Amino acid sequence: MNRINLICLGVRDMASSLSFYRSIGFQTMEREAQPPIVFFDNEGSKLELFPLADLAKDINAANPPERAGQSFPGITLACNFKDKAAVDNVFRLVKQNGGAIAKEPAMTDWGGYSGYFQDLDGYYWEAAYGPDWEFDEQNMLVIP
Amino acid sequence: MNRINLICLGVRDMASSLSFYRSIGFQTMEREAQPPIVFFDNEGSKLELFPLADLAKDINAANPPERAGQSFPGITLACNFKDKAAVDNVFRLVKQNGGAIAKEPAMTDWGGYSGYFQDLDGYYWEAAYGPDWEFDEQNMLVIP
Repeated sequence: MNRINLICLGVRDMASSLSFYRSIGFQTMEREAQPPIVFFDNEGSKLELFPLADLAKDINAANPPERAGQSFPGITLACNFKDKAAVDNVFRLVKQNGGAIAKEPAMTDWGGYSGYFQDLDGYYWEAAYGPDWEFDEQNMLVIP
Repeated sequence: MNRINLICLGVRDMASSLSFYRSIGFQTMEREAQPPIVFFDNEGSKLELFPLADLAKDINAANPPERAGQSFPGITLACNFKDKAAVDNVFRLVKQNGGAIAKEPAMTDWGGYSGYFQDLDGYYWEAAYGPDWEFDEQNMLVIP
């Protein structure tokens, strides 16, 4: 795992946040004013907006492994892998090295395979595999 | 601004966090066990580790524009520009579109020009220019 594909910000008001990020220059082909999720097609790791409450649920925040009294910072970082075994391998390494498992990797309702872990300061990472993902030459996701 | 160069995590124990990220696969040429800052040379936006208290000070956290009762989540995202005017332009757009200024752009002690703003949910962004930065063909920073 030497890659960051997504920086996901949990937002309270999707329409306003989408408008804000567009206004400062971030670009997306999204056409809805209030889409369920937004991916921007920026340089570097792709910026993603996700409803805050749904993001917390996605990482099993009802039962988070609290570290140092930290609450959910609202941000997750993601590494998107090209096979399930790579996801499992990261979780093995995380456990061996003192990270906390927020959600063990499992099949998702969108046909992928995903889990969340926390680093030593409690920051959340998703490691995931999806059968339909396309990657560009920098191993970033191709954003439609 | 359609680019994310750095994802900076404020960490409490640099040596342990450096060891953790190395153990799960992130790569750096860093040789010190407890460096003041670490930049990883990963794919996508570069991962940076920064002492948490220093990061809070760097973004003027003694006087943060509190939004929705949010405290400092410990994470900042950065866009590194190729001239000062681009930094000023982003801050102009942020002000016009409802973002909050955490620190107005100013010259830094390392010879650069940097400011911080918050988006509508209070997440922190740094927009900066540095005269010595080198960029690769994807406009990511070249990490020594």
